[in-house]
Amino acid sequence: MIFSERIKSMQFSPIRKLMPYANDAVLKGKKVFRLNIGQPDIETPELFFKSIANFKETVLKYTNSQGMDILIDSFIKYYKEWDINFEKDEILITNGGSEALLFAMMAICDIDDEIIIPEPFYTNYNGFSEAAGVKVVPFLTKAEDGFHLPKKEEILKKITPKTKAILISNPGNPTGVVYTYYEIRMLSDIAKERDIYLIADEVYREFIYDNLKYTSALYMTDILDRVILIDSISKRYSACGARIGLVASKNKELINQILKLCQSRLCVPTLEQVGAASLINTPKEYFSRVTKEYENRRNILYDNLSVIPGVICEKPTGAFYVIVKLPIEDAEHFSKWMLTDFEYDNKTVMVAPAEGFYATPSLGKNEIRISYCINSNELKEAMMILSKGLEKYKSIF
Amino acid sequence: MIFSERIKSMQFSPIRKLMPYANDAVLKGKKVFRLNIGQPDIETPELFFKSIANFKETVLKYTNSQGMDILIDSFIKYYKEWDINFEKDEILITNGGSEALLFAMMAICDIDDEIIIPEPFYTNYNGFSEAAGVKVVPFLTKAEDGFHLPKKEEILKKITPKTKAILISNPGNPTGVVYTYYEIRMLSDIAKERDIYLIADEVYREFIYDNLKYTSALYMTDILDRVILIDSISKRYSACGARIGLVASKNKELINQILKLCQSRLCVPTLEQVGAASLINTPKEYFSRVTKEYENRRNILYDNLSVIPGVICEKPTGAFYVIVKLPIEDAEHFSKWMLTDFEYDNKTVMVAPAEGFYATPSLGKNEIRISYCINSNELKEAMMILSKGLEKYKSIF
Repeated sequence: MIFSERIKSMQFSPIRKLMPYANDAVLKGKKVFRLNIGQPDIETPELFFKSIANFKETVLKYTNSQGMDILIDSFIKYYKEWDINFEKDEILITNGGSEALLFAMMAICDIDDEIIIPEPFYTNYNGFSEAAGVKVVPFLTKAEDGFHLPKKEEILKKITPKTKAILISNPGNPTGVVYTYYEIRMLSDIAKERDIYLIADEVYREFIYDNLKYTSALYMTDILDRVILIDSISKRYSACGARIGLVASKNKELINQILKLCQSRLCVPTLEQVGAASLINTPKEYFSRVTKEYENRRNILYDNLSVIPGVICEKPTGAFYVIVKLPIEDAEHFSKWMLTDFEYDNKTVMVAPAEGFYATPSLGKNEIRISYCINSNELKEAMMILSKGLEKYKSIF
Repeated sequence: MIFSERIKSMQFSPIRKLMPYANDAVLKGKKVFRLNIGQPDIETPELFFKSIANFKETVLKYTNSQGMDILIDSFIKYYKEWDINFEKDEILITNGGSEALLFAMMAICDIDDEIIIPEPFYTNYNGFSEAAGVKVVPFLTKAEDGFHLPKKEEILKKITPKTKAILISNPGNPTGVVYTYYEIRMLSDIAKERDIYLIADEVYREFIYDNLKYTSALYMTDILDRVILIDSISKRYSACGARIGLVASKNKELINQILKLCQSRLCVPTLEQVGAASLINTPKEYFSRVTKEYENRRNILYDNLSVIPGVICEKPTGAFYVIVKLPIEDAEHFSKWMLTDFEYDNKTVMVAPAEGFYATPSLGKNEIRISYCINSNELKEAMMILSKGLEKYKSIF
């Protein structure tokens, strides 16, 4: 039996494809520090579970395709705190940020249309585009610039009549970059001048360090009809397993069009929406505590990582990832080897090879993405093990 | 700002698009009998809620992209009772049957490939295909044949080099047809002879009346590498709001390919999977009681419907829908009018215009789909109101 070209050309998740080797390692009694995935270890606010346990209906019904009123209202309230004003018909609840992005792409792109994205980018952007028949056109951002954007001319060069949008993740996954006001302004100017959309994936909005000021794409009031916001509670409230996200835009007709896609999958799970809606009552203190914790981890990670011989990385300022250049040739081979052949004191480390975060072939081959979602002591130990692993690997290959 | 052609050509759900009128009617104090949507009124087994309330982890994490082990195991056990044997790597958990179908289409169809479907069909098949760039090629089934399949030649006529699959819903939504062994055998022969897939949406498997024998596509052992099963707990356990479905196939490589799509949306909600996994312990008595209840409703519906002057319908034998021909020209206009302009004793009825269940333009214009998911007494009253409504409508238009 044959498979479609589009499915064949999709890649397995570089974040998840080493999973079987990690599971094997665990079965063999090794402890594996999982730095491959952005799965926070922070506790999900208890509110979430409590409100679900208090759900009183006896029939678990379909809800509205656009999402439950209480949840949409809670998001409207949340955005107000960020000086962003949404109305009810400008937000659609989705199965995580993933579905929000897929739907946004489908709503603005036909087959072979193009979306330009700063590279390296969140690997699943590739998956969604492939599935939707949309072409990703990357433009390069570099570690030595802290993964900040190149000059406007460089970006303009990538725009063709088929370009429908610029897609950014801000703060950046996998780079940890936080774009400045001037960068967001530049992208907005491009979107306006070239009549394209700006899709802003802002799921790491709360994770900003060094007292940097955050600039949402929604602060650019002159282009609000072309800004599409992708968001999710996964990282913000450490609720990845809830799969509650949203797509929002001040362009009401766009939201109305995307509603058709929402209707075709009927609705988002009821209980998860009930839980998510309660999270608006999370005390503010939660965010400051969590951000402080991640900032501290970022410091520890950077301090321990940058001293490993041959390792090159810049200090990230947001999210909880860092892209690291290793003094080896094939980071995927190394990452797999760490799971299958290496151990130090019966422990090892799992990272994500970074090649899958690039659309340009051959880029990122000697890079990995590290996610700092484990506690500080474990992070220190993991960096020590990574260092030992690198040393041994270089002596063999 | 412009939208994609694919989103513009999608339709709003004919099942859901009258919702605003129904909500208005309720606000005005009318009672609305909702026969438009397959939302069972039967209680969800308590097990579901209990197992979720007992969830003890404090971080709501991502789970495996393929679905949680306990849930996959529970499905394997469930299918065994139907003499269907699945192994662990032959099942992927999805966000409802909806996502299962979208992923299946994407995995076997490239842009402009074709899938043939007996018409009328579940309206969302259109939505998914449009989104995936796949062309639906319908072949007609008729009320006077009880919506059973036409002769093999009629179906073969629709097959082109671009045809990748036949898609059926069995028992049928919106027709209530239950295909015979010979019909499933014939489709299997076609799939084999023409080297295409057979996608079997069997979410209504438990809803079979008149002691009919059910034939799953998976009973055709000679074509197991080309059967793709779409399933869901929504109807079986009255758990529509859980959005737990699955795609399964004995073709392991196909499942492995679809896993890429699963990875791109990370995972299905954790708590809903925990709840769904517990449902395997639902007492068998539950199904016999529920089936008996629906069979009884089917009888009451049919008896009260078929005596309304000018109404034409066949007695369905499965699922909980019936397609009804009305003695009017425009069923959508009538359905809307029932909500906006009609009442009897301050009550009215909401149905789904059937035009959206056809791919061929102009078909189904004077038909509606009725879902019998309300209790017998209400059903009787709803049919009386429908009858009064029709009488008045005919006197005006």
